[in-house]
Amino acid sequence: MLVSVIHGPNLNLLGTRRPDVYGSESLADIELALNTLAKELDLELEHFQSNHEGALIDRLQSCRGRADAVILNAAGYTHTSVAIADAVEALAGAPPVIEVHLSIPEAREVFREKSLLARVVAGRVEGFRGLSYLLALRAASALIARRGEL
Amino acid sequence: MLVSVIHGPNLNLLGTRRPDVYGSESLADIELALNTLAKELDLELEHFQSNHEGALIDRLQSCRGRADAVILNAAGYTHTSVAIADAVEALAGAPPVIEVHLSIPEAREVFREKSLLARVVAGRVEGFRGLSYLLALRAASALIARRGEL
Amino acid sequence: MLVSVIHGPNLNLLGTRRPDVYGSESLADIELALNTLAKELDLELEHFQSNHEGALIDRLQSCRGRADAVILNAAGYTHTSVAIADAVEALAGAPPVIEVHLSIPEAREVFREKSLLARVVAGRVEGFRGLSYLLALRAASALIARRGEL
Amino acid sequence: MLVSVIHGPNLNLLGTRRPDVYGSESLADIELALNTLAKELDLELEHFQSNHEGALIDRLQSCRGRADAVILNAAGYTHTSVAIADAVEALAGAPPVIEVHLSIPEAREVFREKSLLARVVAGRVEGFRGLSYLLALRAASALIARRGEL
Amino acid sequence: MLVSVIHGPNLNLLGTRRPDVYGSESLADIELALNTLAKELDLELEHFQSNHEGALIDRLQSCRGRADAVILNAAGYTHTSVAIADAVEALAGAPPVIEVHLSIPEAREVFREKSLLARVVAGRVEGFRGLSYLLALRAASALIARRGEL
Amino acid sequence: MLVSVIHGPNLNLLGTRRPDVYGSESLADIELALNTLAKELDLELEHFQSNHEGALIDRLQSCRGRADAVILNAAGYTHTSVAIADAVEALAGAPPVIEVHLSIPEAREVFREKSLLARVVAGRVEGFRGLSYLLALRAASALIARRGEL
Amino acid sequence: MLVSVIHGPNLNLLGTRRPDVYGSESLADIELALNTLAKELDLELEHFQSNHEGALIDRLQSCRGRADAVILNAAGYTHTSVAIADAVEALAGAPPVIEVHLSIPEAREVFREKSLLARVVAGRVEGFRGLSYLLALRAASALIARRGEL
Amino acid sequence: MLVSVIHGPNLNLLGTRRPDVYGSESLADIELALNTLAKELDLELEHFQSNHEGALIDRLQSCRGRADAVILNAAGYTHTSVAIADAVEALAGAPPVIEVHLSIPEAREVFREKSLLARVVAGRVEGFRGLSYLLALRAASALIARRGEL
Amino acid sequence: MLVSVIHGPNLNLLGTRRPDVYGSESLADIELALNTLAKELDLELEHFQSNHEGALIDRLQSCRGRADAVILNAAGYTHTSVAIADAVEALAGAPPVIEVHLSIPEAREVFREKSLLARVVAGRVEGFRGLSYLLALRAASALIARRGEL
Amino acid sequence: MLVSVIHGPNLNLLGTRRPDVYGSESLADIELALNTLAKELDLELEHFQSNHEGALIDRLQSCRGRADAVILNAAGYTHTSVAIADAVEALAGAPPVIEVHLSIPEAREVFREKSLLARVVAGRVEGFRGLSYLLALRAASALIARRGEL
Amino acid sequence: MLVSVIHGPNLNLLGTRRPDVYGSESLADIELALNTLAKELDLELEHFQSNHEGALIDRLQSCRGRADAVILNAAGYTHTSVAIADAVEALAGAPPVIEVHLSIPEAREVFREKSLLARVVAGRVEGFRGLSYLLALRAASALIARRGEL
Amino acid sequence: MLVSVIHGPNLNLLGTRRPDVYGSESLADIELALNTLAKELDLELEHFQSNHEGALIDRLQSCRGRADAVILNAAGYTHTSVAIADAVEALAGAPPVIEVHLSIPEAREVFREKSLLARVVAGRVEGFRGLSYLLALRAASALIARRGEL
Repeated sequence: MLVSVIHGPNLNLLGTRRPDVYGSESLADIELALNTLAKELDLELEHFQSNHEGALIDRLQSCRGRADAVILNAAGYTHTSVAIADAVEALAGAPPVIEVHLSIPEAREVFREKSLLARVVAGRVEGFRGLSYLLALRAASALIARRGEL
Repeated sequence: MLVSVIHGPNLNLLGTRRPDVYGSESLADIELALNTLAKELDLELEHFQSNHEGALIDRLQSCRGRADAVILNAAGYTHTSVAIADAVEALAGAPPVIEVHLSIPEAREVFREKSLLARVVAGRVEGFRGLSYLLALRAASALIARRGEL
Repeated sequence: MLVSVIHGPNLNLLGTRRPDVYGSESLADIELALNTLAKELDLELEHFQSNHEGALIDRLQSCRGRADAVILNAAGYTHTSVAIADAVEALAGAPPVIEVHLSIPEAREVFREKSLLARVVAGRVEGFRGLSYLLALRAASALIARRGEL
Repeated sequence: MLVSVIHGPNLNLLGTRRPDVYGSESLADIELALNTLAKELDLELEHFQSNHEGALIDRLQSCRGRADAVILNAAGYTHTSVAIADAVEALAGAPPVIEVHLSIPEAREVFREKSLLARVVAGRVEGFRGLSYLLALRAASALIARRGEL
Repeated sequence: MLVSVIHGPNLNLLGTRRPDVYGSESLADIELALNTLAKELDLELEHFQSNHEGALIDRLQSCRGRADAVILNAAGYTHTSVAIADAVEALAGAPPVIEVHLSIPEAREVFREKSLLARVVAGRVEGFRGLSYLLALRAASALIARRGEL
Repeated sequence: MLVSVIHGPNLNLLGTRRPDVYGSESLADIELALNTLAKELDLELEHFQSNHEGALIDRLQSCRGRADAVILNAAGYTHTSVAIADAVEALAGAPPVIEVHLSIPEAREVFREKSLLARVVAGRVEGFRGLSYLLALRAASALIARRGEL
Repeated sequence: MLVSVIHGPNLNLLGTRRPDVYGSESLADIELALNTLAKELDLELEHFQSNHEGALIDRLQSCRGRADAVILNAAGYTHTSVAIADAVEALAGAPPVIEVHLSIPEAREVFREKSLLARVVAGRVEGFRGLSYLLALRAASALIARRGEL
Repeated sequence: MLVSVIHGPNLNLLGTRRPDVYGSESLADIELALNTLAKELDLELEHFQSNHEGALIDRLQSCRGRADAVILNAAGYTHTSVAIADAVEALAGAPPVIEVHLSIPEAREVFREKSLLARVVAGRVEGFRGLSYLLALRAASALIARRGEL
Repeated sequence: MLVSVIHGPNLNLLGTRRPDVYGSESLADIELALNTLAKELDLELEHFQSNHEGALIDRLQSCRGRADAVILNAAGYTHTSVAIADAVEALAGAPPVIEVHLSIPEAREVFREKSLLARVVAGRVEGFRGLSYLLALRAASALIARRGEL
Repeated sequence: MLVSVIHGPNLNLLGTRRPDVYGSESLADIELALNTLAKELDLELEHFQSNHEGALIDRLQSCRGRADAVILNAAGYTHTSVAIADAVEALAGAPPVIEVHLSIPEAREVFREKSLLARVVAGRVEGFRGLSYLLALRAASALIARRGEL
Repeated sequence: MLVSVIHGPNLNLLGTRRPDVYGSESLADIELALNTLAKELDLELEHFQSNHEGALIDRLQSCRGRADAVILNAAGYTHTSVAIADAVEALAGAPPVIEVHLSIPEAREVFREKSLLARVVAGRVEGFRGLSYLLALRAASALIARRGEL
Repeated sequence: MLVSVIHGPNLNLLGTRRPDVYGSESLADIELALNTLAKELDLELEHFQSNHEGALIDRLQSCRGRADAVILNAAGYTHTSVAIADAVEALAGAPPVIEVHLSIPEAREVFREKSLLARVVAGRVEGFRGLSYLLALRAASALIARRGEL
């Protein structure tokens, strides 16, 4: 069972960028923690980060028929990219996409209030910094398991 | 370690009200699943449901110095109650409050787009139906553990 | 056949509060007129008034499987209570809920322009002061009769 | 005692246009039911339908000093016609105008949210499909009777 | 030199409709006063009133190459009719159109705040009740005279 | 196969009104070009122009069961007429209605930004001046042909 | 002469909740200071605090014909409760209601910008923390004295 | 009979500032034309121009009991000065104030769309460039004459 | 201890301008009452009124290091003057500025809803007509006394 | 004569993504149909699809002096990309760009209501699914032919 | 070559007012630095500061035909003064006006988001505190030099 | 000392695209002028232009610890890219980023009114066409020099 983790723009800077908002863990720290939990949950993981909207769409499209769940932190594109939201919608839940944020964007600047992804994702975890990813991975695990039951 | 679970208006109807949106689990089912996980995580749980805004505020206030974390699904009051948000803010993170929703309210009607709680909670889990609560409990467990480390 | 009549906040003051807007009939006058018409229509009535949003929700929830129709004047909560609207929606038309107002709120202050109930009620009668209730009762009677035909 | 019933644009299509929203009764069915009730209430009725905003205004103007009450379903013009609302306002309650809708427009598309008529009509009945008209006729009957008492 | 005076919906009721807003002069009174002033200014007048948006457009179109100035009180259509504004714009100032109002619409209800005509008329006189028309006629006279000079 | 072409307000002025926006072809020129193309596509055409909103609704209603497709340029009513949009919606795609504009209204004044027709038409061609109609006629031809295949 | 002091949600936490905004006095401190001043002004005081919107309405209603002035800090309900504002309006100035705030809500978050009470209270004191109550009590004293003069 | 003419900011530049919008007449030209007409109408005139909002308020206040009518072109302050509008309102129609504009501000930039004066003036003339003032003077003359009749 | 009282535009007309809103006391009456209370509170007072925004800013700036508290009724400038608000902010609480209004502006026209001063003043008293000033003076006295304690 | 066809994000998924909205044709199907028609119209075609906003801009820029017309379906970028609209504007009509959509975006979600391209394209065809492209190609052919005539 | 430097309200307080936002330089410091640079650039300078909107307009008007460039920091009036913007527009670029700000107003409070000057100035420098003025002076120098070339 | 100059989408077309707005200098011209001034200021320059949002983010990220200042003209992305603004914010002033525009975007179309960069840049120069860059380079030089002093 493969879970594809997709990180949007500037997340490669994690740990150095505004630690008051995003925490002090680096992206590598988060990937390590995710890998450990994935092993425990018997899931395979792949990681991808890009600052390019188009590259994120390409990656999302590639998940169809290949990944069993997607964990997506679209960062700044969350609020501006109809195109990424369309790519998620095009997956039509197969695989399901879980939206993750380190902070709660709605609690910050006005331009972060709306998520274009809300309408098309399976669920959302936000505000727990690095822990958000781990909870999302558990959610992915449960969604995959549940799918088997249906 | 006590985690206080607080359910807002109409959640007592869970399982019968709009299963397309909220799923078919009853509130009792969710409490059962929570209790099982709590045992595993070595946490004590208490459950409270009310349709009364004031009763929810009373309960939130009572958590100070008594509970180690709060899981709150304020349901319809999420979008209209400055008073509940003020009660959460008054706790000032001690204990931390985790916002939970079965659906993703932002993806539904316009009047559910904004959460007055976003500004004052520690984190948020939404869209996974009953599973949202279990993820929130894991988040609570982690927040409590982490607190010890600080 | 039971019709449950539910009055929201400040309606206990009817006849004394702003007679220019709400007329000079008291709540007792209206209940008397309703009882007379109910007898004529062969319906049983019950009356409930509360200033408490939660109590109104409790009452609405109690109507499921007990009342055959509900007549609801949510007064000030009409415009602010997502929670009451959710309670009406949870009834899913069984029994149907009829929204009543003494005045036409949309014609008054800006904050009375939108009814959160409009989306979830079976119909609406407004502006006829006490007569609004009698028309709503006739509507209830017709809805109950029609249900038998389906 | 004459009650003038005025139907706005596209209501001549009733029964064939979106039965999910407007019901399956034709305009003729509604007029028949109204005539039956009018006889019972000892009222004379006249019916008028037009797709022309100007024709509806002409008709409304003609009611002054001729009709004792008006039942008006302005359909699509409800939300766009300041001119029809001005015509109703010019009647100044003599005769009173009762606004009728088959559905609850506020519960539908955004552009149906506001009624320009709300400010100038005596009362409003909406959402009960054909039954809305019958309730409006009863309201008209009561308003006429009450006028005698003043 | 012909000045075409065009009155929109409900202006045939002048003198009886809301004298507090529109004054107690009838449309006939205003036409009489206009005719007297026209004679003094050596202008020919024609009068037209309709409640029909389309008829007002037809009349406006007919003024091209026939009238030397137009005085237009579009009443309720001032705020809603893109089509009438397009008809005025199509005249392209030949003849010029002068907008007239008895009251100052911007000072009244919110839905009277914007005039779709403002963008396309030569000038505007409002708030002086019947006198507004006389001032507009003087303006028309001056615009016609000035045209000769260019 | 009959295609009904319906022109809204002020389109009778085509060629003389703002040639910078609408081009220099007259309505007769466009009808001639349409007739030529109709012959080529083996379609019968009928043309109708009116400045009256009600007349346009009457015409649209008359197309049911009589025309195989409708080409509609509602001009200024595009942005203000809920009633015309309701008439199109009432046709429910039988026949399909194609929206045409000479310019791209969304690119012009703010009050032309929204089309009330967008929600109910089969498709839209705009900005190509007279050519817009010819493309719409080809679209009509294709929609009629495709219908046969279903 | 009785002055009824009514405190809304979370004010029981005063002194512990956000001292940067609300100051460090407890509700008991404020009540003590009020009692002292009341004695000086020869007024009787009663104190009431509740987190329940309905309980606040009940209390306000009970003041009619019983209290000579009301001091109301509706806290979070100031911005959301049409029902409390209706209860104040129903008192119709007998007794007058004085709105009090510790901070100036309009200077804080956007959702605290509007007070639904502004329209219906006799006056407002805000921003002086505990002192706001003492000034309100002096205002109450003056309003009562002045009433005697009229 | 004295008519006070008050010109707001930048009107001293008339004739040199944007002749496409304001025409090529200077303020002196306009005053000359006004003086000529005043003699004909048997009125005394006084002229005042200032770029200072406060000076315009002082002048308006000085008109009470001294002038019989006021002609006011508040220019840029029309859209921003609550204080000037309050000064006009304080005159309470004695003398009446007539609003004048050379162009039609509502037809220009968005920030010129609303006039704070509309609510408090007796009438408004706009768009006729220098002629606007002459029409306003005739209006003043008529308002003064009419006052005598009442 | 000096308290500087600053009155904005049109307050020199107090007692004659809209007594229904502002009461019948003149500015001289209010100054007299303030002087009496100042003596009682052992404070020195100075009074200043101007219709000029710039003069009010000059006066506010002059209070730094000279006055111990400022009482400011900016009247119409309350809602439009960023510059006055900046002048208050520049004082940085030394001396503190207390905002006063005779009415509650938020309860009146829409353009009086927001106070640009709210963000920068120490507190606000409004709605008590002349009494508002006396309460503000008591507030000033308390703020000065409290400062000594810090 | 070369026509460059440019497809934006997610259009490579055509036929599999939401067939209810976009139809069941694949992008290859559409390209085939376009090629057939191009041969008939004696035009050369080139096809380009990318999920990358920057790549689409690069392609648009490359069309200057190389292509004779452009057919652009910017998909999700239609509503968010000022940069793509700037690239189209930079072409300044040489070659002209024709906007194409399979659905009518304005009829769908609120965030698809505005097209940033509307202001800068030569024309627009939308709602006819694959047929939209064919009509656009005919439009391109006509625009190219017409250019020759000028 | 004369450059006129115009400072708006509260800039006389520079160095003492909010140094976190505006820096610690006084206005005298800035004038000194400007004079030094002016000498280097062979420009004559004049300085003017006022808190009075009218005085700033008077000064701007005086620059026509006298100054070769204007550097304007309108401070709080930037966002509220249509009259100052009109005065700048009246200069019509002769001399050109350069807008200067110490901070970036758009990045601060919502009411500082829009500059009414943006539409009418030649260019804008903001955010560099005192340095903003020096850059503006260099811009003025270049604009003057370039003018000679044309 | 290295200053990195980053140009956003379509700036490679400079000199050919809308010279009325952007001037007739090419990007090469501007780079040449910048290089000349850099030599004079003893700064090293590097130039980068891309139409790809992601590439611009990559470049911005690369400046940390490598460049001493950044000059950024994000063109169309200024108004839409939260991701680029986040990249600038992540630099946290080390190096500082200076926003440059050839025109004043706020003075143009509505969708260019807001800059997402305003909140995170050190300063802004706009409207001087190519000169904007030179002023920005001087600003960069000053900011670098000043840093040494701190």
